[in-house]
Amino acid sequence: MSTETPATEAPDAYHDLLEKIQRISNVQNAAGVLGWDQQVMMPDEGTPARSKQLSALSAISHDLLVDDDIGDLLDELEATDLDDEQAAVVREVRRGYEREVRVPTDLVEEISSTSSEALPAWKEAKAEDDFSKFAPTLEKLVELKKQYAEHIDPDRDPYEVLFEDFEPCLSLSQAEEILDEVKATLVPMIDEIRESDVDLAVDAFEGTFPEDEQDELVRDALDVLGYPWERGRLDVAPHPFSTGTMFDARVTTRFDESDPLGALFSTVHEFGHATYTLGLPDEQYGTPLGQSRDLSVHESQSRLWENHVGRSKAFWDLFLPTFTDHFPETEGVSAQQAYEAANQVYEDNFIRVEADELTYHLHIVIRFEIERELISGDLDVADVPETWNDKYEEYLGIRPETDTEGCLQDIHWSYGNFGYFPTYSLGSVMAAQLYAAAEDDVGDLDGQIREGDFDALHEWLTENIHRHGQRYETNELVKQATGEDFTADYFLDYVTEKYGTLYDLDSA
Amino acid sequence: MSTETPATEAPDAYHDLLEKIQRISNVQNAAGVLGWDQQVMMPDEGTPARSKQLSALSAISHDLLVDDDIGDLLDELEATDLDDEQAAVVREVRRGYEREVRVPTDLVEEISSTSSEALPAWKEAKAEDDFSKFAPTLEKLVELKKQYAEHIDPDRDPYEVLFEDFEPCLSLSQAEEILDEVKATLVPMIDEIRESDVDLAVDAFEGTFPEDEQDELVRDALDVLGYPWERGRLDVAPHPFSTGTMFDARVTTRFDESDPLGALFSTVHEFGHATYTLGLPDEQYGTPLGQSRDLSVHESQSRLWENHVGRSKAFWDLFLPTFTDHFPETEGVSAQQAYEAANQVYEDNFIRVEADELTYHLHIVIRFEIERELISGDLDVADVPETWNDKYEEYLGIRPETDTEGCLQDIHWSYGNFGYFPTYSLGSVMAAQLYAAAEDDVGDLDGQIREGDFDALHEWLTENIHRHGQRYETNELVKQATGEDFTADYFLDYVTEKYGTLYDLDSA
Repeated sequence: MSTETPATEAPDAYHDLLEKIQRISNVQNAAGVLGWDQQVMMPDEGTPARSKQLSALSAISHDLLVDDDIGDLLDELEATDLDDEQAAVVREVRRGYEREVRVPTDLVEEISSTSSEALPAWKEAKAEDDFSKFAPTLEKLVELKKQYAEHIDPDRDPYEVLFEDFEPCLSLSQAEEILDEVKATLVPMIDEIRESDVDLAVDAFEGTFPEDEQDELVRDALDVLGYPWERGRLDVAPHPFSTGTMFDARVTTRFDESDPLGALFSTVHEFGHATYTLGLPDEQYGTPLGQSRDLSVHESQSRLWENHVGRSKAFWDLFLPTFTDHFPETEGVSAQQAYEAANQVYEDNFIRVEADELTYHLHIVIRFEIERELISGDLDVADVPETWNDKYEEYLGIRPETDTEGCLQDIHWSYGNFGYFPTYSLGSVMAAQLYAAAEDDVGDLDGQIREGDFDALHEWLTENIHRHGQRYETNELVKQATGEDFTADYFLDYVTEKYGTLYDLDSA
Repeated sequence: MSTETPATEAPDAYHDLLEKIQRISNVQNAAGVLGWDQQVMMPDEGTPARSKQLSALSAISHDLLVDDDIGDLLDELEATDLDDEQAAVVREVRRGYEREVRVPTDLVEEISSTSSEALPAWKEAKAEDDFSKFAPTLEKLVELKKQYAEHIDPDRDPYEVLFEDFEPCLSLSQAEEILDEVKATLVPMIDEIRESDVDLAVDAFEGTFPEDEQDELVRDALDVLGYPWERGRLDVAPHPFSTGTMFDARVTTRFDESDPLGALFSTVHEFGHATYTLGLPDEQYGTPLGQSRDLSVHESQSRLWENHVGRSKAFWDLFLPTFTDHFPETEGVSAQQAYEAANQVYEDNFIRVEADELTYHLHIVIRFEIERELISGDLDVADVPETWNDKYEEYLGIRPETDTEGCLQDIHWSYGNFGYFPTYSLGSVMAAQLYAAAEDDVGDLDGQIREGDFDALHEWLTENIHRHGQRYETNELVKQATGEDFTADYFLDYVTEKYGTLYDLDSA
């Protein structure tokens, strides 16, 4: 264990704090189980009771956290000599406490109820391709979230404050810098790909692939990658996700009979998230040291496994025979063709969740830019559709013809989640940096992947990322793991090299 | 709605109380979801986190209930003019509050942790057929539960107090009277059956019945009986159970390839429980008026559907073709043979959960008698095995050769559940009375079952039992539904007639 100061006997106040925090964690983890159940198992008409159960748990968790006792314990502990781990726990609890205590409960409830109304409004608007049906609630949510940010810190850019809900240890300017670099490289690269004459083997996996066989396929993939079934399970969910604790980290996927790679990469992606959760130390269950760092770090784990492992040529050298076992009709497909099919750039795709590894980030940049202007007041809700479409044209060379495939495609704004999207791209960028560092440390990862030997990679990630929980803040965590500051360089090198080769680009 | 006094505008204190009670219900229902997940979905190693989550919810629910505010609200409301429904809510909350507030938290926690230790001890003792491995924890649990009862009421028979945890509105003496009557009729009847020359078609369903086909069979049975899938689901659990709310009432079953009737009746039994939950009024979710009455009433619903419907000749007239569709190898079996196979009395069975409709109650009586003596101190834990075996010999004419198939077979004592078993028999007895009353009211139930028309029965049960929640106490509920006091007469008539005919008994 790397602690700069030796572990000291913890003061009583620390034990008291831990006990309170653990109870809150248990309530939140219980809510996590209810959420999983709601998306995976619950019958259709279960919603009224489930909503009330989740609201109650959320209110209880709030009440437990804003308790005066916690404030007093934090005050006392901040004036006490603590070892580094204890200090990290106090730092993280303080952070959560401050955010929770500053926002009036009424406002929290109003956001929650507005978001409940927003969900059906968004669904209807999307189904009918009618943005005006969503606009009023979106407007209300923007307004409420600005108030929310103002309660937390009236002196700062409200978007910055909202961003911290998802990414408390990265500054917005740092995120912006990274996204700008990504955009500056990708926009011309995608343009060049559009001009390229190279024909990838995009139809390698065309056909119909029955769901139950795909289910066995993705279970085999999880076996190959080393998913511990005694601490997890795989189910189907309309929007795949991963959830749980180090004792029980579940993944979900979805199947489309025409797209076996979709299910496969979605599964590997969620597997990556689950590895992080599973790598947190058992004995820290319920404390910040047993909880994952921010969303960017979480996403770095999912993207690393999805893109750097799952979409690599080495993985297809390893996994193609398994694929062919399940789908003998693809017997003629070579590992190189599978690799190409897995990495084609979709030049005409409007939908973020169906995007490839390159265009994906421009979908993110567009949402990021629009969100910022919405929250700053520079953009009216009514003007979102046109701005959206203009940006798609500018960055991706395509213009959505409907709002359904435009600004209504994502659910997140109906949750009132502003500041969330950037974490996806930050995670990809971080994944590239971590993967490069892991390769530096453990040697030929490609060779190991080809052999189906993922132990060294798992160990490296656990040792350098997972086991720390929230011990370090994000930048420090990345620096300790890689020896360098968080940077977009590795990601840009990675995509330039990979797609340069695939599409025979001059810029590569 | 039958309220003797007109609904009055509820006082503020009533709304305040409801709000608090609903929050507690939500926490308990959340725990219910976690419990379901634990038994049905959770991966093996999820236990450490799940136990902590459940303990936290249980502690929170306790803290919320023993809150001084609730005591004050109850005091105020008891001195206020309330309508009948409001008064019922106050009565039920008071009952729960008093039990919770009188037992020190330390003792509750000690019972909970001792029971956690007891579970593995019981498992080991059962696996190794060594009662001495379970005896010390059992002794401790008996002692703790006696203390528990003393805190609640030091002046009463502690078993009486414990019984009220499961059956708060029936007196122990009433239960005892009913069980005595049941025993007095069944012991000689089973003896006579043992002497009978009648050969029932016990081998009608011998063979191997694959699990997935059984799964489809029991789903068909649920369809036929009218299970609303939009508010429920069926899964597999080692010990089948039903759980949930009126919005989401799930059932579980288990499969044994040699015993399709086992899965079928277990499913119908849990379906019966679920119908009760589903029949509670939606708008009373989270209040005592939206919660089921006691365990005997719950069990009356499961037994009614399992025995009076599922094990009837009429049901087999209806359902045999479906059975044969799934298992064409049983094509030669007639409805009468199926009926006989479903109702054979197992003369040599030691295991409660495998017992038939008759011997079942002697399994219960034996446990009831032993529990009472354990709690009164008239029986030492060390003497349980011998007493157990003696009673089996006396009542059932068989003597277990091991404790594994004797006093170690059931899990319940390791939970510290003393006073629970009688509710099973009380439920069967009540089922017979309710079924007879329903038949009186809605006419030829056999004919309706044969037609697959269960609407009138569902309606009668909902109207007379389900929709009341905890509006009435048990005896009043039974009396309102049937016009008579709770009595064993109908059950005794039912078994005398049914088994008299089946086994051609003189006594019939």
